[in-house]
Amino acid sequence: MMSTVITLSINGLVSVIGYILTLKLIPSFADHFVSAKLYGRDLNKVSDQKIPEALGVISGAIFLVCMFFFIPIPFVNFSANATNQLNFNHSEFIQFIGALLSICCMIFLGFADDVLNLKWRHKLILPTIASLPLLMVYYTNISNTTIILPKPIHSLFGTELDLGILYYFYMGMLAVFCTNAINILSGINGLEVGQSVIICISIILHNVLELSGPVSAYHRFSLYFMIPFLGTSLGLLHHNWYPSKVFVGDTFCYFAGMSFAVVGILGHFSKTMILFFIPQVANFLYSIPQLFRWIPCPRHRLPKKDAS
Amino acid sequence: MMSTVITLSINGLVSVIGYILTLKLIPSFADHFVSAKLYGRDLNKVSDQKIPEALGVISGAIFLVCMFFFIPIPFVNFSANATNQLNFNHSEFIQFIGALLSICCMIFLGFADDVLNLKWRHKLILPTIASLPLLMVYYTNISNTTIILPKPIHSLFGTELDLGILYYFYMGMLAVFCTNAINILSGINGLEVGQSVIICISIILHNVLELSGPVSAYHRFSLYFMIPFLGTSLGLLHHNWYPSKVFVGDTFCYFAGMSFAVVGILGHFSKTMILFFIPQVANFLYSIPQLFRWIPCPRHRLPKKDAS
Repeated sequence: MMSTVITLSINGLVSVIGYILTLKLIPSFADHFVSAKLYGRDLNKVSDQKIPEALGVISGAIFLVCMFFFIPIPFVNFSANATNQLNFNHSEFIQFIGALLSICCMIFLGFADDVLNLKWRHKLILPTIASLPLLMVYYTNISNTTIILPKPIHSLFGTELDLGILYYFYMGMLAVFCTNAINILSGINGLEVGQSVIICISIILHNVLELSGPVSAYHRFSLYFMIPFLGTSLGLLHHNWYPSKVFVGDTFCYFAGMSFAVVGILGHFSKTMILFFIPQVANFLYSIPQLFRWIPCPRHRLPKKDAS
Repeated sequence: MMSTVITLSINGLVSVIGYILTLKLIPSFADHFVSAKLYGRDLNKVSDQKIPEALGVISGAIFLVCMFFFIPIPFVNFSANATNQLNFNHSEFIQFIGALLSICCMIFLGFADDVLNLKWRHKLILPTIASLPLLMVYYTNISNTTIILPKPIHSLFGTELDLGILYYFYMGMLAVFCTNAINILSGINGLEVGQSVIICISIILHNVLELSGPVSAYHRFSLYFMIPFLGTSLGLLHHNWYPSKVFVGDTFCYFAGMSFAVVGILGHFSKTMILFFIPQVANFLYSIPQLFRWIPCPRHRLPKKDAS
């Protein structure tokens, strides 16, 4: 097993390659998207130009390719005594592959949603389907459903609580929350990717601070996913920044949300992660009257450009 | 660990559910595909009706959902002494998840190809990308690159041969071959799914015959994938049968080819599997003059209906 520093350096290198690939490939694929009728018009601009939509699928696909090449790095023993397989962490390897499966499935379903314009109820079903591999891998491989309670309520409920099957329900809901939290806060150039980049940087900082702590393995696991996610998202943000030359589509929102849910769950810091979603939680609460149809909700909730 | 019979019975039940779901969901999604401009016209019919295209993505998505629910079944210990985790086969579990990751990635890339009408060279790159997780999991988890040679050449080369890195090249090529072998033989109603169903049934029969043999674990692994594949494909075939109400798209060809490649590689019977592809190999050889552009190749190679 290589040292954490070398593994993370390779991960950073992969991330830089991902950034460059995303930056270069998005313009070359943009015309394909317009030809395939995947385009929108910028409601905040005077011009009626066709802006290619759902380009998040490119950053998602490049993220996957980067992660595929990275698969062996943390797990293969390159040192001299390569026959010593005792250090090989099967459990972590299974979680790694399971997490990739959930993210890959979410990018696929997100893209299908963008292309087929599925109904509103599908936006709740799709993340649930995509989180299934994660839950099943967790169930088969870990099965630990105990959570550590926050300090202020230790005197009431003790230090930990076994949630049982509710824990799986909680994990599934977290995936639905994260994907929709990114999706609901959109409509301004660069907002979907911008907020994801900010959340991602917050998670990376949290992980780095915890790397020297007692649960460093969890936070290293999270970094393996978050650093390449940051790289590919920055490449996308470059083209999505005001004035947007491409839109990211639901694909990106699903992809980002599922990536956060995956590292939150398998990195065992899901409650901390929700703290990084405070603006999205506030937006969700503020939107409840429209979400539950107590007051009408337009297709796009944003101020219109006064063309005059 | 449950007995093989119970596990395979549950797999069969999942497969039947997959068949029913595919049968019911395809008609309800067909209009979405036509609205998204995913449709073709039947070149062999007088009518100029719009036939929804790329419906293979529905059978692929249902296959994935079936497999996600099936994940824990072969691996979780439901018996009384559940604390005894010694029987848990981590290696097989990793291969199971890795295989699903490759198939999921291939369905996603196949659908992206159908939507975006990618170039011809992408048809070679996409299966290579999707086979990466498989190769990486194989490299990290198994690393055995020795093949058993066929009996007739034992006297020349011995009984086995270590291919080294060539083995990974061989596995990658197998994925490219299988996906394109299904794709190239198309153009007649039901042909893509029909040939896949025949190959799938051949593989299932081969696996069942080998179940009592010395390498039964490999063939059980293959059955876990092939039985649900058969179920969802039969559901699709029902709608794709003459006269086709839906077309399957490149998505299905990629999905089918990658499923066969995965079970051939991880089931260690890839050379036997190629025997089930004899018609496709013959078609490939027959098509070489057109594939290499020695003689011109039309977009669709099939007899045209004489409209009069």
